[in-house]
Amino acid sequence: MLRPESYAMGRWVAPGSGARAIIGPVTGTRIAEAGNTALDIQGMLDWARNSGGPALRAMTFHDRARMIKALAQYLNERKEELYALNPLTGATRRDGAIDIDGGIGTMMVIAAKGRREMPDGHVYVDGAVEALSRKGSFVGQHIAVPLQGVAVHINAFNFPVWGMLEKLAPTLLAGMPAIVKPATQTCYLTEACFRMIVESGLLPDGAVQLVVGGVGDMLDRLGAQDVVSFTGSADTALKLRSNPNLMRNATRFHAEQDSLNATILGPDVAVGSPAFDVFVKEAVNEMTAKAGQKCTAIRRMILPEAVMPAVADALMTRLADIRVGDPALDDVRMGALASADQKTDVLRVIAALGSETTCLTGDPEQVVLTGASPEGAFLAPTLLRCDDPDAAQNVHALEAFGPVATLMPYRDLDHAAALANRGGGSLVASLFTDDPDCARRVTLASAAWHGRIYINGTVSAAEATGHGAPLPHMVHGGPGRAGGGEELGGVRGVLHYMQRTAVQGSPSVISAITGQWLPGAAEVAGPAHPFQRTFDEIAIGETLHSAPREVALADIEHFAEFTGDTFYAHMDEEAARANPFFPGRVAHGYLLLSFAAGLFVQPDPGPVLANTGLNGLSFQKPVSPGDSIKVRLTCKRKTRRTDEYGEVAWHVTLTNQDDEQVAEYELLTMVSFTR
Amino acid sequence: MLRPESYAMGRWVAPGSGARAIIGPVTGTRIAEAGNTALDIQGMLDWARNSGGPALRAMTFHDRARMIKALAQYLNERKEELYALNPLTGATRRDGAIDIDGGIGTMMVIAAKGRREMPDGHVYVDGAVEALSRKGSFVGQHIAVPLQGVAVHINAFNFPVWGMLEKLAPTLLAGMPAIVKPATQTCYLTEACFRMIVESGLLPDGAVQLVVGGVGDMLDRLGAQDVVSFTGSADTALKLRSNPNLMRNATRFHAEQDSLNATILGPDVAVGSPAFDVFVKEAVNEMTAKAGQKCTAIRRMILPEAVMPAVADALMTRLADIRVGDPALDDVRMGALASADQKTDVLRVIAALGSETTCLTGDPEQVVLTGASPEGAFLAPTLLRCDDPDAAQNVHALEAFGPVATLMPYRDLDHAAALANRGGGSLVASLFTDDPDCARRVTLASAAWHGRIYINGTVSAAEATGHGAPLPHMVHGGPGRAGGGEELGGVRGVLHYMQRTAVQGSPSVISAITGQWLPGAAEVAGPAHPFQRTFDEIAIGETLHSAPREVALADIEHFAEFTGDTFYAHMDEEAARANPFFPGRVAHGYLLLSFAAGLFVQPDPGPVLANTGLNGLSFQKPVSPGDSIKVRLTCKRKTRRTDEYGEVAWHVTLTNQDDEQVAEYELLTMVSFTR
Repeated sequence: MLRPESYAMGRWVAPGSGARAIIGPVTGTRIAEAGNTALDIQGMLDWARNSGGPALRAMTFHDRARMIKALAQYLNERKEELYALNPLTGATRRDGAIDIDGGIGTMMVIAAKGRREMPDGHVYVDGAVEALSRKGSFVGQHIAVPLQGVAVHINAFNFPVWGMLEKLAPTLLAGMPAIVKPATQTCYLTEACFRMIVESGLLPDGAVQLVVGGVGDMLDRLGAQDVVSFTGSADTALKLRSNPNLMRNATRFHAEQDSLNATILGPDVAVGSPAFDVFVKEAVNEMTAKAGQKCTAIRRMILPEAVMPAVADALMTRLADIRVGDPALDDVRMGALASADQKTDVLRVIAALGSETTCLTGDPEQVVLTGASPEGAFLAPTLLRCDDPDAAQNVHALEAFGPVATLMPYRDLDHAAALANRGGGSLVASLFTDDPDCARRVTLASAAWHGRIYINGTVSAAEATGHGAPLPHMVHGGPGRAGGGEELGGVRGVLHYMQRTAVQGSPSVISAITGQWLPGAAEVAGPAHPFQRTFDEIAIGETLHSAPREVALADIEHFAEFTGDTFYAHMDEEAARANPFFPGRVAHGYLLLSFAAGLFVQPDPGPVLANTGLNGLSFQKPVSPGDSIKVRLTCKRKTRRTDEYGEVAWHVTLTNQDDEQVAEYELLTMVSFTR
Repeated sequence: MLRPESYAMGRWVAPGSGARAIIGPVTGTRIAEAGNTALDIQGMLDWARNSGGPALRAMTFHDRARMIKALAQYLNERKEELYALNPLTGATRRDGAIDIDGGIGTMMVIAAKGRREMPDGHVYVDGAVEALSRKGSFVGQHIAVPLQGVAVHINAFNFPVWGMLEKLAPTLLAGMPAIVKPATQTCYLTEACFRMIVESGLLPDGAVQLVVGGVGDMLDRLGAQDVVSFTGSADTALKLRSNPNLMRNATRFHAEQDSLNATILGPDVAVGSPAFDVFVKEAVNEMTAKAGQKCTAIRRMILPEAVMPAVADALMTRLADIRVGDPALDDVRMGALASADQKTDVLRVIAALGSETTCLTGDPEQVVLTGASPEGAFLAPTLLRCDDPDAAQNVHALEAFGPVATLMPYRDLDHAAALANRGGGSLVASLFTDDPDCARRVTLASAAWHGRIYINGTVSAAEATGHGAPLPHMVHGGPGRAGGGEELGGVRGVLHYMQRTAVQGSPSVISAITGQWLPGAAEVAGPAHPFQRTFDEIAIGETLHSAPREVALADIEHFAEFTGDTFYAHMDEEAARANPFFPGRVAHGYLLLSFAAGLFVQPDPGPVLANTGLNGLSFQKPVSPGDSIKVRLTCKRKTRRTDEYGEVAWHVTLTNQDDEQVAEYELLTMVSFTR
């Protein structure tokens, strides 16, 4: 008998007398007891806010990203322990991979995004500097910093591991501690994974806690710096988000609710074509993976009227091959629903859809089981058909959270999009087409109603990631019925646990806050040429002013001949004058860039290893023959990249003999930690 | 007697029997009647959703930006009509400038941002393409599209013009219609401005409607595609956001509530120094502008213990010079509160603060009036002192929405930040300091609690925009007590009226949706060299493949000598080999760029006028002597800039003789509409 424990204020807490039985969905017998009676809710919040938060905030984004990556690697090494428990939830190994490997992979991607797209510091810079004054003594910059409270994660039963890890990774990367509350039905698997996290010793004290059972009055104790991230049913979400304390404090409440996700088969897709086959394969997969218990699963298949019978046949043929039974067996393709209650609920919804649909597969309860007994929460894949989807209400509003989908016909693309939108807001809608213009039309008509639009066809079939798969790179969530929330999406998901703040001040003040130099901020004189300084020696703001160099007409002509760039603006005075941008013949932009490098480069071996690129180059004023240019090179930003070197970004300006700026760019270099 | 009307479904609706009297705050007499009885609420929503929305969505972002700019110019020409009504609200001309010119200026900035930072199309591209597959046949891209419902703007009484315009500009730019509901007390001024908007004829039918009086059951009729943007008191916000229909549909609810904004005087600022004087000047201005009725006004002044008496003296001296009275008079600096009720409310809060504070200014009702009678809603500027702000509760929780502020001492910077954060979330906190490190410390400690941090000091004093001024460039809103909402902030504020959607598909599908080419999408062969094609002729995806060119050792040596860039990686085989990035001597990156231009430039005069810059240049693989390079140049994006030319961005790749990519960048050019 499993007795999963809570983890509060750094110690494990056994369920005590508050435990209730968890009935396994495969056998219909008791497999675990879970609950809590003795949790000190305020103590847990305090521990998170006063220990976990400060410890996480003391780390940089890159520190936290490395921690998350190490944790993912640790879990990956021990994942077979999780796969061993997985069949108890009703899930096959293939289902478990979505949950377990999917969760670990999500952590890996979020950690990598943290290293690549966030600074190695404490302040995230959001967008560009805003010019707020004529002379530049006062500017604006948006930043984001970690919220100073605690994130409460209330998770669903269907993904006990992924559900925890996909929220933990962005939360920890943001610098916020979390309290995880898994759904009780599958909490033993979450607890097993959470136990590994604690045993890894990789997280600071207070960073994570676990509540097995109810959260008591936790929501009544949250405030303006806390976040609730909820995944589950619309009903529960509504109940929780109505909490008066949360509303009074404007506590962030992210809800990700299951929704009436639709798929559209494009009018261009012929029966039996490669795109048709991809559609059928994905549709069957969405119906049967996790026995259809995915919040992103396809509930409505919107089909060209003429091909609906052929689609139905193709789906029925494939569904007939799906072996249902004991999820621990290798040849079983679909396991049980999560519980007998879930099965009852699905049957109830199927019954409610009866007035609007015809059942194409017979009785969902008539299912041949492999290695399992009918006491388990098994259901046959169930295909319904709705012939009048315009008049129907329930098919667009009631979700059967199991292996159930409804086919419905459309007349034209606008009708198809309108039907997809009838779901009232969903996590994902998909389209199978080989016609980019069809993709564009459907997207414009329906993107506002869906958090994600997944488009597949012949070209992308081999590499597409699946209608139902939320990816760490892309936002997951959706408007309306889907909860109005958003999670993941790389850095976007991290920002859900941070406060965006508009900062206004002098350039030197903004520079001190972001750790990045900007024009107008103080320049620092270095003791040597910056190319001879190591990564750590180079100071933010360290500046080199070059000598001037004249740009002669002969230089321009020589450059043109040498490179082959004989554009008339450089070669023909009269034609150049006729151009609205030039006063006459002018120097090539790349000649200026090249001369600039000649002015600031120190040729000897030293810590500056390579020029790896540049950003935001703007040619602001033409340079005429006889003008001279000089360079200002200032260290703008530093980011450690490996154990040996890091990236140094330099702000570079070129000015002419009248001190007018003629070009500006950000130069990227790799600089060694040693000399 | 003013009788402001509603504007519903394209016609003006008189108040009818539902009107109630509005009492002028200056004279205490009836100045207007307002209300409604006959509005067809569902009809208004339908008109917005079915006429206004589609008409706005048919326009591009640039079309809408031009429309907003034209509207701002139109209002600017007629603004004296608004200034004529302004004193009726209790506001001086100076107060009115914040409202009227401030509102018009906000529209101008939002329109300019739309032209500069959003595409000339229907889909906003959010962030970079996400690689989701090894071979690149399936990628991700976040986009944003207009919500398909209606935005309901519920505005506060204190800024009848700005409050409307600062919400309308981002809403219309997003492509969403709006229904504006001003606070009744000052609705006649809003109505006068709204009437100009209608009379301008610049907006499509259904784009805007106005409700004078109550909105009836409008909130009960909103859904997943609608937005409520509320500005006002925390109590009203709580009541509105609790609407069960809004919660069930996850209808977006943005709240911007007045809050207990704080200012901190830095420990480095000496009494009588320039930064000290700036502090005193801004503090007095925040107390007295709009008679303190700004949601961003300073309510708490957090001061180094030692200088508190000097600050109090300086403030008292300046406040004594503030002439209170008829706001229509030129020499009056502070007018009336908005209504007698507001005055009563402020006096009630001052009384509630009495147990924690000492009043430094005597009786707020003892005020010498210029040209006005005591029947008006006048108050003297009122300065309170709280000596134990740690123990105090009310000073951090109760807002006197008038010319009232409380001084309180701090011990050190952490204490100062903690006191600022005691407000439980605010719109803005400010800091006056000349020490960037102090600015950094305060920001890190308190940014999570404030929507905006305003830092001023000696350097920026002449150009700083003011503690209390929300700018269109910067987000306005704040966590917790401030409502948890966000508006403005350039494009950020526009996105509040749009849905962000994750789109996944093949590169050609993504390109069709965004209107931008990306690697992997289909290439288009043009009938002529692209430099000889006009802006309109050049197709997205139009591609030039150049001939190859060898990069000889002599080229490298010659380039080094010519430009002066004799970096050892180009000149010294042995030293170059020791560098972790290079196999030996390599070509200069700028040599490659220059040769590339030589390969793709067509030298004759034609529609391509100038190379104005480049973005995201990345050198991906070294080029050794004897290697050859060739160029692929593909039209990625087009943006009209003037009536004569537009910007064409080209995606450029350089590949070597083994077809390995060695460099990639985005090239920016200006291209004429004519040949």
